[in-house]
Amino acid sequence: MFQVNENYLKLPGSYLFSTVARKQKEYLEAHPDKSVIRLSIGDVTQPLAPAIIDAMHRAVDEMADAATFRGYAPDLGYEFLRNAIVENDYRARGCQIDADEIFVSDGAKSDSGNIQEIFAQDSKIAVCDPVYPVYVDTNVMAGRTGNYDAKTEIWSNVIYMPCTADNGFAPVLPKEEPDLIYLCFPNNPTGSTITKPQLQEWVDYANKIGAVIIYDAAYEAYITETDVPHSIYECDGARTCAIELHSFSKNAGFTGVRLGYTVIPKDLKCGDVALHSLWARRHGTKYNGAPYIVQRAGEAVYSAEGKAQLKEQVAYYMKNAAYILNGLKDAGYEASGGVNAPYIWLKTPDNMTSWEFFDHLLEHANVVGTPGSGFGPSGEHYFRLTAFGSYENTVEAIARIKAMRFT
Amino acid sequence: MFQVNENYLKLPGSYLFSTVARKQKEYLEAHPDKSVIRLSIGDVTQPLAPAIIDAMHRAVDEMADAATFRGYAPDLGYEFLRNAIVENDYRARGCQIDADEIFVSDGAKSDSGNIQEIFAQDSKIAVCDPVYPVYVDTNVMAGRTGNYDAKTEIWSNVIYMPCTADNGFAPVLPKEEPDLIYLCFPNNPTGSTITKPQLQEWVDYANKIGAVIIYDAAYEAYITETDVPHSIYECDGARTCAIELHSFSKNAGFTGVRLGYTVIPKDLKCGDVALHSLWARRHGTKYNGAPYIVQRAGEAVYSAEGKAQLKEQVAYYMKNAAYILNGLKDAGYEASGGVNAPYIWLKTPDNMTSWEFFDHLLEHANVVGTPGSGFGPSGEHYFRLTAFGSYENTVEAIARIKAMRFT
Repeated sequence: MFQVNENYLKLPGSYLFSTVARKQKEYLEAHPDKSVIRLSIGDVTQPLAPAIIDAMHRAVDEMADAATFRGYAPDLGYEFLRNAIVENDYRARGCQIDADEIFVSDGAKSDSGNIQEIFAQDSKIAVCDPVYPVYVDTNVMAGRTGNYDAKTEIWSNVIYMPCTADNGFAPVLPKEEPDLIYLCFPNNPTGSTITKPQLQEWVDYANKIGAVIIYDAAYEAYITETDVPHSIYECDGARTCAIELHSFSKNAGFTGVRLGYTVIPKDLKCGDVALHSLWARRHGTKYNGAPYIVQRAGEAVYSAEGKAQLKEQVAYYMKNAAYILNGLKDAGYEASGGVNAPYIWLKTPDNMTSWEFFDHLLEHANVVGTPGSGFGPSGEHYFRLTAFGSYENTVEAIARIKAMRFT
Repeated sequence: MFQVNENYLKLPGSYLFSTVARKQKEYLEAHPDKSVIRLSIGDVTQPLAPAIIDAMHRAVDEMADAATFRGYAPDLGYEFLRNAIVENDYRARGCQIDADEIFVSDGAKSDSGNIQEIFAQDSKIAVCDPVYPVYVDTNVMAGRTGNYDAKTEIWSNVIYMPCTADNGFAPVLPKEEPDLIYLCFPNNPTGSTITKPQLQEWVDYANKIGAVIIYDAAYEAYITETDVPHSIYECDGARTCAIELHSFSKNAGFTGVRLGYTVIPKDLKCGDVALHSLWARRHGTKYNGAPYIVQRAGEAVYSAEGKAQLKEQVAYYMKNAAYILNGLKDAGYEASGGVNAPYIWLKTPDNMTSWEFFDHLLEHANVVGTPGSGFGPSGEHYFRLTAFGSYENTVEAIARIKAMRFT
């Protein structure tokens, strides 16, 4: 008789955003007259930029003609896209990354979930707390996290690095030595960042203890301050300790288009074994490439027109971010983030739990956000709002939050 | 110090098709004047059908307007696509499958590689021999296959079910009881099929011993004979023992578009645990859906125009298949397949090994095929040709093969 992967059964509840979506749906079914504003999941709302639309139409037309039709993509992704990535995201910033160190994928979520596969079963992971749930959940599925204590919401074999108001939402080096360190800056969910010297400390630490940093740079396009690094490869020594994940979801609005990439420098080795070759094997065996049309859309992100249009798009969302941050502060909330990231992290009022505040906000302001506790135990009593709504909805949501009563 | 997943290091050589591509590239670099015809990897060459092109253009335009823009897709895929799948691929054939039992994905390769994750670490797998390498390699990566004997090309903890000329390339029930049984009909690589009563035996067997059949139906559109089942759910009892994988790569030419789906009936359980809910958890945690544009393209596959156009496209390739099969027989080769599948399976002449024949064919006919031994030990002395070239190239390749000398 077949048996299932019992690690899956250890996972508490369902995936955070599925629960948020279900609660929202149930509320709307019970109150069909209400207009609910979603500032929860990090889903964009602005249409694709014209340069990207044009590129996709052209690519669709190419697929209509046998002479220009494209079948399976090259294993790592098309060179035209990998070259544009290297040129714009690395060389322009003085980072030494080659085009054959780029693995194009269908998004950073898949990559951040799958990357753990190439590491040993008994790898010890360190995560920020709060944290994007995918990092932890995929290690739970792989059986690396030990046992779950429902009361503390802690896995026995995970190193948690609390990011709280006390440390400016920046993790400190853990006492216990990890094998894998997940870092995400600008951070999801707190919207915080660290400076280049701070990141250099992590790189030095990882090289010293022989750990790998999995650096999620999904939100780098939102950086506005100059001392915040866009890539971990801006730090000396990162080529021997860091994997970097990139998304096109937020900088180019590709949440429904699906494109991302992962960088594994060839210098990143365990003894003689290059992680690059393991990931290449995984990529070649379990994946068949991002659609040609989508890779052409990705290329357009780096065109002159695309860059100009996307700068405007990012500015649109960051205007929302500033509006939310300032609005919350006006209303007396403790709030941070929103300066180099599209996320605003607020402390719930009256010591409400995150889910209590979620329910209160949904019922009394008809606004959906994401409970901080869903991102980890240190996220309890916090709440995340995103800047990805329309400006009009964002303004309306803040007006509703300001008017909200707590009796 | 971090360690790698040592199971990856057990994998012999690189992924089959990467090796084939490398050898082809090296040959072309050494002989830039030669025109090489690829009948190797199962990559299509005909352009996308007009109905699909139109649907994609429309979807691209929707993404250009905030009112119709689509971000993250629903976890299982869009209902419009899942409904079309259920209506056409299941209800029309009398199979009881519901739309919420369909998981839309970026292709059957990903799904066939990932599906093993939801099963126990010590699951025993049974595979046909020869077999699509992804089934075995992904279980190697997961540490389920024991040790590899380079001489026999056998993994110690895999149940091999030889498919040879002696049994008409149809596996017989194994003596040792497996937990997971991978079946693919019409078969890759042999191009063989089994009848509905034969498949019913497998379903009955799986239900009896408590095994799960992972049924890869990627090539069902190529079935021309009436007694060959298009879906395993045509068999009684399949809802309690079978997962079915579907691809749009071959029936609709989506190798560069990327779309597939997996069916997990809710009746398929291990005790109280429905595999459906485990796969839903994986899908929701490690994947973010196929692109909206691609899901609309998939919907167009089931439109009246789409169906008519794709019937012609499949007929085009099957004309090639018949041409290859008959040409090889004319030339004195033992060959099979090509009737319900786009693959032709031939016995190498003069007892050449599969790779010897590969090199010979590349050098003397400038035709690239796939060595049978790359699919498993029982594939040794066999060779796969595909019908996915253009008709002109197919005719030319057969002419070259007929003229080929063996001194």
